[in-house]
Amino acid sequence: MNHSERMKCEALKDRITTAEAAATLIRSGMTLGTSGFTPTGYPKAVPAALAARFQKEKGCCINLYTGASVGKGLDGALAEAGAINRRMPYQTNTTVRKKLNQRDIRYSDIHLSHFAQEVRYGFYGKVDVALVEALEITEEGHIVPTTSVGASPVFISQAETVIVEINTRKPLSLKGMHDIYQPQDPPHRQPIPLVNPEDRIGTTAIPCDPTKIKAIVFTDLDDDPISFTPADEDSQQIARHLISFFQQEVMAGRLPEQLLPLQSGVGSVANAVLKGMSDSPFKNLVFYSEVIQDNVLDLLDNGTFRFASGTSFTLSPDGFDRLYANMEKYRNQIMLRPMEISNNPEIIRRIGSIAMNTAIEADIFGNVNSTHIMGRRMMNGIGGSGDFARAGYLSIFATPSMAKGGAISAIVPMVSHVDHTEHDVKVIVTEQGLADLRGLSPWERAESVIENCAHPDYRPALRDYLAAGMKEPGHTAQLMHEALSWHQRFEETGTMKP
Amino acid sequence: MNHSERMKCEALKDRITTAEAAATLIRSGMTLGTSGFTPTGYPKAVPAALAARFQKEKGCCINLYTGASVGKGLDGALAEAGAINRRMPYQTNTTVRKKLNQRDIRYSDIHLSHFAQEVRYGFYGKVDVALVEALEITEEGHIVPTTSVGASPVFISQAETVIVEINTRKPLSLKGMHDIYQPQDPPHRQPIPLVNPEDRIGTTAIPCDPTKIKAIVFTDLDDDPISFTPADEDSQQIARHLISFFQQEVMAGRLPEQLLPLQSGVGSVANAVLKGMSDSPFKNLVFYSEVIQDNVLDLLDNGTFRFASGTSFTLSPDGFDRLYANMEKYRNQIMLRPMEISNNPEIIRRIGSIAMNTAIEADIFGNVNSTHIMGRRMMNGIGGSGDFARAGYLSIFATPSMAKGGAISAIVPMVSHVDHTEHDVKVIVTEQGLADLRGLSPWERAESVIENCAHPDYRPALRDYLAAGMKEPGHTAQLMHEALSWHQRFEETGTMKP
Ligand SMILES: CC(C)(COP(=O)(O)OP(=O)(O)OC[C@H]1O[C@@H](n2cnc3c(N)ncnc32)[C@H](O)[C@@H]1OP(=O)(O)O)[C@@H](O)C(=O)NCCC(=O)NCCS
Ligand SMILES: CC(C)(COP(=O)(O)OP(=O)(O)OC[C@H]1O[C@@H](n2cnc3c(N)ncnc32)[C@H](O)[C@@H]1OP(=O)(O)O)[C@@H](O)C(=O)NCCC(=O)NCCS
Repeated sequence: MNHSERMKCEALKDRITTAEAAATLIRSGMTLGTSGFTPTGYPKAVPAALAARFQKEKGCCINLYTGASVGKGLDGALAEAGAINRRMPYQTNTTVRKKLNQRDIRYSDIHLSHFAQEVRYGFYGKVDVALVEALEITEEGHIVPTTSVGASPVFISQAETVIVEINTRKPLSLKGMHDIYQPQDPPHRQPIPLVNPEDRIGTTAIPCDPTKIKAIVFTDLDDDPISFTPADEDSQQIARHLISFFQQEVMAGRLPEQLLPLQSGVGSVANAVLKGMSDSPFKNLVFYSEVIQDNVLDLLDNGTFRFASGTSFTLSPDGFDRLYANMEKYRNQIMLRPMEISNNPEIIRRIGSIAMNTAIEADIFGNVNSTHIMGRRMMNGIGGSGDFARAGYLSIFATPSMAKGGAISAIVPMVSHVDHTEHDVKVIVTEQGLADLRGLSPWERAESVIENCAHPDYRPALRDYLAAGMKEPGHTAQLMHEALSWHQRFEETGTMKP
Repeated sequence: MNHSERMKCEALKDRITTAEAAATLIRSGMTLGTSGFTPTGYPKAVPAALAARFQKEKGCCINLYTGASVGKGLDGALAEAGAINRRMPYQTNTTVRKKLNQRDIRYSDIHLSHFAQEVRYGFYGKVDVALVEALEITEEGHIVPTTSVGASPVFISQAETVIVEINTRKPLSLKGMHDIYQPQDPPHRQPIPLVNPEDRIGTTAIPCDPTKIKAIVFTDLDDDPISFTPADEDSQQIARHLISFFQQEVMAGRLPEQLLPLQSGVGSVANAVLKGMSDSPFKNLVFYSEVIQDNVLDLLDNGTFRFASGTSFTLSPDGFDRLYANMEKYRNQIMLRPMEISNNPEIIRRIGSIAMNTAIEADIFGNVNSTHIMGRRMMNGIGGSGDFARAGYLSIFATPSMAKGGAISAIVPMVSHVDHTEHDVKVIVTEQGLADLRGLSPWERAESVIENCAHPDYRPALRDYLAAGMKEPGHTAQLMHEALSWHQRFEETGTMKP
């Protein structure tokens, strides 16, 4: 292979090595910061070598910091080797999830925009090694990321040692789609100059002191293939409620005709909502979010979106083919940024994002749980949902009204864990309907959520709960002895139904 | 009285009238937006006339929107007249609190920085009348606020009718201490140009279309006198823990020697913490917060602070005397801004505030309740605590470890209401000690909070709870059937002790 097309820095030629050799730079006890955001753009060759070594040398452990979730080859391989001590700030991997719920992995669930700057502030200790996937290393030794940016700029600037995996499977045509900007830290920070989602404010490569690059590994390994479940009828119904809500807001003069930049969370409901936008009368919208999924390409193609900004391409294999085949078109329509910028509350508040995220459950008073099943079991993490929900112009949470075939109501008296407080939840939507909670008192919110969002099967019991609570004085009609009884019942009987 | 010294706009001369006449502009069903933030700078003469009229004409009701809490003459008088339908976004008045807990007043508890912009976005309906206290009306008809700014700029820009109370008791020398800036709304918003807390970015008066000013009333009524309870031993102990924490952070290189701009919440604990800073080795600090209290003047006088920015002067009568007697000194050291700026997350994140707020209770996993007693009774509201806690460089919550003479543990298994989620709470401090929760897993947080913050009387029971929770799998060792049992026990027996 001709390395010089991808590795342009003369001074680094002798750093090209094997994954196994590179992996020896990572020793037990270290903190590793890697590229990757949703299972794309994460390193694969060195983690495989590292996991193999850790499988043999028992008792080894590292702290693994990433952008967000990463693929099986990194999270899965290291977790299976029992080699992850601490994990931050987000994950979706089956093995990691299992292990953190067994408390074998110390997991910290952190707002993504916080994590990036707090690593720089030194809150999470020293990052010993940055391990990042790259398209190329430039003449100056700077690093061009691949299909995600995530927290790579922070790890690269903080680590003493940088290991680069150049992935030749990812086309060089991606170069130029990244916009890398790292704010200074207080008290020296300046306004982040991004005013329109389309603005380019940084460089196309991640600046790096080339002397820190100790190993360069060439690979052509693929990311985990991503597949999407087709939108079910409930999710489509949620999308329809949302679109008619947007239409009403435009009519009332509370949103401009081209809306405001949309953000969309992860998961099947979020997918369906984006898909639903295709059938809406809206055109020429802007998307300012984390993840560019297949349906974002659809929306760009059919004119619903005119521009999309994110921190990763989370595409199916078909989606990637489509992207790569039409790079010249998409190059002007898509930008990938560090998650410190894609999720930055300064920017989100300035541009006025419409934040659409998914709840596991919501309570009648408007609090949302997005992370914990029955208050205990971690699903994924808060990710960027808090960055967008708190700072956005509008914050919307969607969920099907029931889970587990109806044994669970997603609308409960009190959520079993709070990720988004009543102050940050303006709208709740289920397939049943939409509750606009702005300016309402707690009992008005409760009535609206019960009558608009709860499944009819659960409405009588929720009305009873509210009525009982309303018999006692107090702003929020919550009953300490019953608030969590629905979860308790589910744990005891397998259903929330009485 | 010579009106022309305070009312300089020729065209408005004929608008000078009595409070009773001005009050007739406010009719039942209207939404009234007033000046006032903490009981200072709120209108007093027109509300008195209005309350008197509403006492006579039964069945009248208005919606009352303010900056934050206001005095008895406004909140108290209207609530006693039964004339408040909706109330936003914060209150501390005894009658209002009683009525909203009886659900006679529909109260919406809203992040202060959200409220200001969301009024402009139209989320809370039309503001019919803005009623604001002023030092003077300028030649152009612009309005110079008095001892607080709060949400006045928003109400004045939004309302069709503006009523001004010129309070001649407040000295004209206050003029020039205000810095009025109102951001544009998305998609047209630009970066807010405040980079250093000392920066002046706006005007000294609130711009107003003079044709909207329909009535001008002269008064010399005083604000409610504010008194401060002297710091008790617990609060002083909390202050000492915090100061030694700051010293450690400086030593570790995670804070600069002059720290970063401090924010301090309301209440007796917050007061003590500020007071405690006087005995600290820190000098030349900057204060960027909501409220300038007596002890902020002390800190400016003794060189601990070099500059203070807020949205209101919340001073005792003595404090005001001191301020007014030394205006030339303080003029260069203090600035009052709209709460949309004092509490703006864009700015708070940029300058890197150290957010110090008070909890009613905190749970072992790091969630904080700042608003609800026993999950039901509203105390005050979230105020600006969420603006600072989420966007700050560091967010700290303080509380004495027990309340009600030890019958209540402020450290509980699960808080009865969540205002600040585990993601937003980096440090918890009580008189017992300080728990630094950064980067910890839930069970590590629980151990740290129990051993450092809980009162020794409650530690064994908390350890038992955690141990029982740790017997079951799950990231967060919460037990649905016991999580709120401490609150339940208090309600049933009058103590949380078993
Ligand atoms: C909340 C979240 C888990 C939902 O994801 P999703 O794919 O739309 O959710 P699903 O409906 O498929 O549910 C996922 C699982 O939770 C279960 N579930 C859903 N609601 C539940 C409830 N109320 N109680 C118990 N289990 C529930 C489902 O049954 C499903 O279980 P399974 O995996 O065993 O089949 C996901 O959006 C998330 O992690 N969000 C937080 C992070 C985030 O918002 N990131 C974006 C920021 S930009
Ligand atoms: C939380 C808050 C109420 C504490 O105020 P404080 O004056 O320091 O609190 P105190 O210790 O005097 O307690 C106030 C009352 O709550 C009671 N209380 C305190 N902790 C309690 C608990 N865990 N359970 C029940 N009652 C409790 C106290 O006994 C006291 O009762 P009383 O009025 O009947 O005497 C106050 O800081 C607040 O409203 N914060 C939210 C808004 C905010 O942070 N604003 C600033 C943003 S910049």
